[in-house]
Amino acid sequence: MLKYHLSLIILLYVVLTAIAQDSAMIRNIYNEALLRGRAYEDLRSLCKDIGPRLSGSSEAEMAVRWSESKMKSYGFDKVYLHPIMVPHWERGNPETAWLTINHQIIQKMSIKALGGSISTNGALEGEVVMFKHLNELKQAKRKHVAGKIVFLNQPMSAAEIQTFNAYGLCHPIRSNGAVEAAKLGAIAVIIRSLALPLDDHPHTGSMHYEDSIPKIPAAAMSTLDSDYLAEILATKATVKFTMEMDCRTFPDALSYNVIAEMTGKKHPDEIITFGGHLDSWDQGEGAHDDGAGVVHCLEALRILKALKYEPSHTLRLVFFMNEENGNMGGKTYAKWVQEKKEKHIAALESDRGGFTPRGFGCDGNAEVFHRFSSYESLFRPYDLHLWQKGGGGVDIGPLKNEFHDITLFGFIPDSQRYFDVHHAASDVFENVNKRELELGAAAVSSLIYLIDSDLFH
Amino acid sequence: MLKYHLSLIILLYVVLTAIAQDSAMIRNIYNEALLRGRAYEDLRSLCKDIGPRLSGSSEAEMAVRWSESKMKSYGFDKVYLHPIMVPHWERGNPETAWLTINHQIIQKMSIKALGGSISTNGALEGEVVMFKHLNELKQAKRKHVAGKIVFLNQPMSAAEIQTFNAYGLCHPIRSNGAVEAAKLGAIAVIIRSLALPLDDHPHTGSMHYEDSIPKIPAAAMSTLDSDYLAEILATKATVKFTMEMDCRTFPDALSYNVIAEMTGKKHPDEIITFGGHLDSWDQGEGAHDDGAGVVHCLEALRILKALKYEPSHTLRLVFFMNEENGNMGGKTYAKWVQEKKEKHIAALESDRGGFTPRGFGCDGNAEVFHRFSSYESLFRPYDLHLWQKGGGGVDIGPLKNEFHDITLFGFIPDSQRYFDVHHAASDVFENVNKRELELGAAAVSSLIYLIDSDLFH
Repeated sequence: MLKYHLSLIILLYVVLTAIAQDSAMIRNIYNEALLRGRAYEDLRSLCKDIGPRLSGSSEAEMAVRWSESKMKSYGFDKVYLHPIMVPHWERGNPETAWLTINHQIIQKMSIKALGGSISTNGALEGEVVMFKHLNELKQAKRKHVAGKIVFLNQPMSAAEIQTFNAYGLCHPIRSNGAVEAAKLGAIAVIIRSLALPLDDHPHTGSMHYEDSIPKIPAAAMSTLDSDYLAEILATKATVKFTMEMDCRTFPDALSYNVIAEMTGKKHPDEIITFGGHLDSWDQGEGAHDDGAGVVHCLEALRILKALKYEPSHTLRLVFFMNEENGNMGGKTYAKWVQEKKEKHIAALESDRGGFTPRGFGCDGNAEVFHRFSSYESLFRPYDLHLWQKGGGGVDIGPLKNEFHDITLFGFIPDSQRYFDVHHAASDVFENVNKRELELGAAAVSSLIYLIDSDLFH
Repeated sequence: MLKYHLSLIILLYVVLTAIAQDSAMIRNIYNEALLRGRAYEDLRSLCKDIGPRLSGSSEAEMAVRWSESKMKSYGFDKVYLHPIMVPHWERGNPETAWLTINHQIIQKMSIKALGGSISTNGALEGEVVMFKHLNELKQAKRKHVAGKIVFLNQPMSAAEIQTFNAYGLCHPIRSNGAVEAAKLGAIAVIIRSLALPLDDHPHTGSMHYEDSIPKIPAAAMSTLDSDYLAEILATKATVKFTMEMDCRTFPDALSYNVIAEMTGKKHPDEIITFGGHLDSWDQGEGAHDDGAGVVHCLEALRILKALKYEPSHTLRLVFFMNEENGNMGGKTYAKWVQEKKEKHIAALESDRGGFTPRGFGCDGNAEVFHRFSSYESLFRPYDLHLWQKGGGGVDIGPLKNEFHDITLFGFIPDSQRYFDVHHAASDVFENVNKRELELGAAAVSSLIYLIDSDLFH
């Protein structure tokens, strides 16, 4: 009985000591991020010295070199490039649109081609037929659509508390609008920007064509101009929409995922991948999407090194290329490491912007998730309350196909301001807050530490 | 036994029905705020049609009339003014400062008088003696301070996760700096702005004098210029600091708390007060401090009326005057309602800016706090996780002296960006996010509903 009590006391002591150690380490991580942090200046450099960096562009190439040089400057164990082929699409010039109302009034409209769209081949003019959502278009009769420009005017729902849910509900109009409109003979498609505020910014993004369906030009229009067009259409005025876009798709280009590692001391062959995507759309500066995620993860590894942390497993930082229009970085990486027969135990992604951290998602087995959930108390002093099922992201998602036992994690910052700037000219460094960014880097670094030291010890 | 089971089932049914009702009501409140909200446009009007509104100014008078008119437009049961006397201080012109380094280099410095400071009576020049915090000044010898300008260069700690804690630690340099410096014969005091970012904005705020201690001019300097001055002082160069401020204090002025009510149906004599403060500093637009709090509470009551909610108790919305430099609104209100022998059961304040809601504080007895804590589950879908002990605020605090049983509540939004703009020219409408503001109004409205319908039913 005494022996039993003694064992319990020893066990309690061990557990409490471990908790105290983790608490102290996390506090040190936060101090490094907040007092000696590099995330904000690194993001400034990425946004201002390079700016937008769409796959295949020379800015994307600059960003690859910038990343390699930055990682080397931090003295990680290894820094290398992983070659991949990426799509190369350019927006071109001009990119304009206007309304002609009752044959006389001319009103300029604010549009941006969706990524991958074909050109209009000079000015393209047509009547406009509006639909409230994709299903309404799908149910339309061909005679109402053929020869016209389809306008998909589905607003993101402000009532959704989680803005990503509202985004998800509207995503089909951007992704599938061109295909569905072309099936009914439309000559072009205009979508209402996937954005919550009423403003003048068109928000671009990816779309797709299908081989058997004619390709038609596709563009996003600002929310204000979408409201305006809907209003004009309701008056039964004669409305012509004219648009000109000179987009071009070039042959696939050579590019790179940029990788840095700290080698594991106990299990060097077991890999924890974490990262964001280095490419961005060709407007704004890709500050929140996904400059923030990239510097979160860069800073996370820099902090662990600065604190002289010796990882058990190999920590592999990956700046993925081409998340925005093809995901060739994520897809190629997953296949590549599988072919190399590497052992991947976990991956984490940050691709929801540089806002105040709210928590993490975890896509793992019950035992792992249970342990993950228990971290809530460690992070309570830092106001991280969300320890959710599910997680991952576009870049690390393909790893799940190759490694069925892998656990995926997703960083969850506050989502309220994300769709103000997403894929728009307003996604610039000035719209990232220093403290919010630094707290994100600290949160990611802390979870990487726990994944390495505790979750898969 | 059957009877016992039946009772349990009925009880369970009643409890579950109540929870479902509350959930539905809160969802309706959020929908009203997010889909048909007025908070953002009301804040725009307060900030842009009026702007800064320091107590005693004509803008403060405009703000009183604006508030009365706005409340009447929403058709509340009663709208009235509560007359109070407030301090009337003006910053005046000029307000400049510069350094002379080694008798030749002139460098302009960015300062703003602290509220209530005396004038410098023309240019005032002196050597600078720097202290790291107020205690270091207190321990200094008179001969090191007399005849000089004291520079209190205590930075807010970026390592504090809760920025209000960092603010609290630095608050003494602003509040007591002039008194402590004058005790040792200083001719003026300059404090490092109570702000987290490194930028060019001086952040003003209240300070005080004591009757028996000579009054000396007091100003805040931007964080960048504070760093610069500290750097120059470390070089042992000959440094003279010249400052000129033409502040004036006028006789106390008549002003008003602005009040609206919805009369309680069951307990019209039991009052729940909630509000923010209408006055602001004389820079920026008082957008977060406390335009946001004022419209949170205005919108909270508008929403309850829009949803045809019939309150049990009297809901009294108060826009307090003069929180910033005297708190005469809060103090006078508490005495006034006590003299009228009103019954006050609860009060809530929003004065921490218009950022994403994180939760509430509650300063009440154990039973009330226990029930309050249980609301966490109702608000989980809205990502409010903080249900903390303590609460209230400057305006409603005095009610506790008059009504010992009153429960005070404080709204807690995310604090990370608050001290970027607090009391500075950057506290403008453009720095308030629409969704964040609306979510705050919805959270306040929901808690007012629960306080009225559940907590004190």
